[in-house]
Amino acid sequence: MFVNQLLIILVAAFLGKLLSVKMKQPSILGELLFGMLIGNLGIVTLTKTLTDISDIGILLLLFSTGLAVNFKELKELGSASIIVASFGVILPFSMGYYTSMYFGYSMLISLFIGVSLVATSIGISSRVLSELQMIGMRLGTLIIGSAIVDDVIGIVAVGTVLGVSLKGNLDISKLILTIILTLLFLTVSFTLAIKLFQKLSETFVFDNRIVGNILTPILIVGLFFGIIAEKIGLSMITGTFVAGLIIGQTRIAKEAFEKVSFIGEYLFIPIFFVTMGMQFDISAFTSSGIFTVILIAVAIFSKIVGCGFGAKLCKFSNQESLTVGIAMIPRAGVELVLVKIGLEYGIISSEIASIIICMVVVTTFATPPLFSALLKKVKLNGT
Amino acid sequence: MFVNQLLIILVAAFLGKLLSVKMKQPSILGELLFGMLIGNLGIVTLTKTLTDISDIGILLLLFSTGLAVNFKELKELGSASIIVASFGVILPFSMGYYTSMYFGYSMLISLFIGVSLVATSIGISSRVLSELQMIGMRLGTLIIGSAIVDDVIGIVAVGTVLGVSLKGNLDISKLILTIILTLLFLTVSFTLAIKLFQKLSETFVFDNRIVGNILTPILIVGLFFGIIAEKIGLSMITGTFVAGLIIGQTRIAKEAFEKVSFIGEYLFIPIFFVTMGMQFDISAFTSSGIFTVILIAVAIFSKIVGCGFGAKLCKFSNQESLTVGIAMIPRAGVELVLVKIGLEYGIISSEIASIIICMVVVTTFATPPLFSALLKKVKLNGT
Repeated sequence: MFVNQLLIILVAAFLGKLLSVKMKQPSILGELLFGMLIGNLGIVTLTKTLTDISDIGILLLLFSTGLAVNFKELKELGSASIIVASFGVILPFSMGYYTSMYFGYSMLISLFIGVSLVATSIGISSRVLSELQMIGMRLGTLIIGSAIVDDVIGIVAVGTVLGVSLKGNLDISKLILTIILTLLFLTVSFTLAIKLFQKLSETFVFDNRIVGNILTPILIVGLFFGIIAEKIGLSMITGTFVAGLIIGQTRIAKEAFEKVSFIGEYLFIPIFFVTMGMQFDISAFTSSGIFTVILIAVAIFSKIVGCGFGAKLCKFSNQESLTVGIAMIPRAGVELVLVKIGLEYGIISSEIASIIICMVVVTTFATPPLFSALLKKVKLNGT
Repeated sequence: MFVNQLLIILVAAFLGKLLSVKMKQPSILGELLFGMLIGNLGIVTLTKTLTDISDIGILLLLFSTGLAVNFKELKELGSASIIVASFGVILPFSMGYYTSMYFGYSMLISLFIGVSLVATSIGISSRVLSELQMIGMRLGTLIIGSAIVDDVIGIVAVGTVLGVSLKGNLDISKLILTIILTLLFLTVSFTLAIKLFQKLSETFVFDNRIVGNILTPILIVGLFFGIIAEKIGLSMITGTFVAGLIIGQTRIAKEAFEKVSFIGEYLFIPIFFVTMGMQFDISAFTSSGIFTVILIAVAIFSKIVGCGFGAKLCKFSNQESLTVGIAMIPRAGVELVLVKIGLEYGIISSEIASIIICMVVVTTFATPPLFSALLKKVKLNGT
């Protein structure tokens, strides 16, 4: 049963890849498209095993992104990333909130819609950057850095709004604890952990002659950091990204990147994006109206302007700032979870759920072509 | 939750590998051992996702085995394989049956115990052969060929006995249909399919420049043949093995082997053997008595003598024949399923189940050290 499903998903991924190559688009576009097709035609239904395996895909994507990022540059661009991410959170949230209020929705629902515009789906742009081999470049670093900060802010924001919606009050002490633990996690990771793994990478633990291949220990490190991050209250992908950064500072960085991105790129990551496509419910579009169109416009506009303005503040060129803004458009990860919880607890109606799903689908599909076209231009200009 | 389990299993696999290297044993031994440890200590319990993922492991192992086998030699050794497998089925079955009858068990239970001695667990010896890079050699080819024939006979035998036990009668027409379909499947695979894939391997479908990497289409082919085989009534691994043989006759054979064995060897296959170890219930040993000891002796003796005699008939040397016999000792795959069904339908008592599990554990653990020691000797003698 599972093998049948896996076969269909791999075929969908493969056809998606071929279509993308044919149309000179990033692979992710075809994978999402074929995923949406098999999902909406009911050819494959998502099972626990499939979501579990596709989770590995996104973890590997962020792991290899961490391995490929230029860490020194990332540190240099640290404050720029925070600025870009912050504007890219504030503008979408407030525009989403006020637009909803203007359309007559309650304050709670407006808050919910506002938050649904916050979190960028880091996978989309990481994948495009990785396919164009631009993760290690300055602009790629800024985008990845901003997307990671956005992920952290997004999770906190979603947690806050859900806390308020579900319990009616905000657990400030828990929020502060999460922030303290996050800072502690990052500090330990980038000081002690880097030193530790630089030492460890010289030992038998990462010696191919002894362990056969470093893939297994490397994966152990990645998953371990993912779990730690989740325990703290962050998302798991932030943890594996940090693990990638750490291993990236060791003797085995290059080999680790090759191995991790190999099993990711040709197996788990395509599965992730196909199953993401499967979760897009096309029927959501049938009930869409003027508010849907406006919200989508707000979603796109607010990220481009918010993040673009942030990048501009940090002295990036107009074209680069626009590219950063485009890169941050897609929403998908947190939003789909948000919709699910919102429906379950009766915070939002199925109408609002449909509207958010439309926004997710459009932003997800619009980004790869736009982003890759812009990236190619930026690359030509030699940034 | 799943990621936590996966992490623990990878750690178990890694520690198993290190222990095996330290003790100069094949990796599989340490993986089984640590699997048994985490399973029996209740650190990880088997979930659907874990068994699904480990199924991919055994499929990849047989796929890469098919890719590595020397097909021409396999065809030459075809009748030898059938002879070895046949003696290796008849002797264990009849010895198991008569021993059980002698100990006063009913005819039905004796039949059941007899059948439980039939099917060799192909994974164990494939893995050891692959680790010592002896799949492509003459003796390796004979062992793989015999193990595959054994797998086919084993499935038919188990199906027959279960049919008789559960329904009280034997569905001859279904049996004949399975045999006809099997022959048809093999004939089409080794004529049309080989020609087809030789052509296809020259096209864009397997062109790295277009598809990024041939891993995805290769996996599609492997899974497809696995599913076909299962539809016919064979085991899925037989299908992926055949797919490996077919792809092995094309331009991309070497690359396919590298890719498939990479994702297998360092990710899925260790997971498979760790979860196999997890399924061994140590408490089965507490109730073991004289019959258990005798049955284990019968299980080991009958395969060595049966298969060894078969190999000797086919003009292999004494040492080679002994090695073939040892290679065929391990039981694990079908037997564990058999025990489960037998218990579910009340055909066997939990006492009999324990006895069979003891036999499975002992034969599985005893084989890798014995087999690899003998293989190294044979390799030195230059067969």
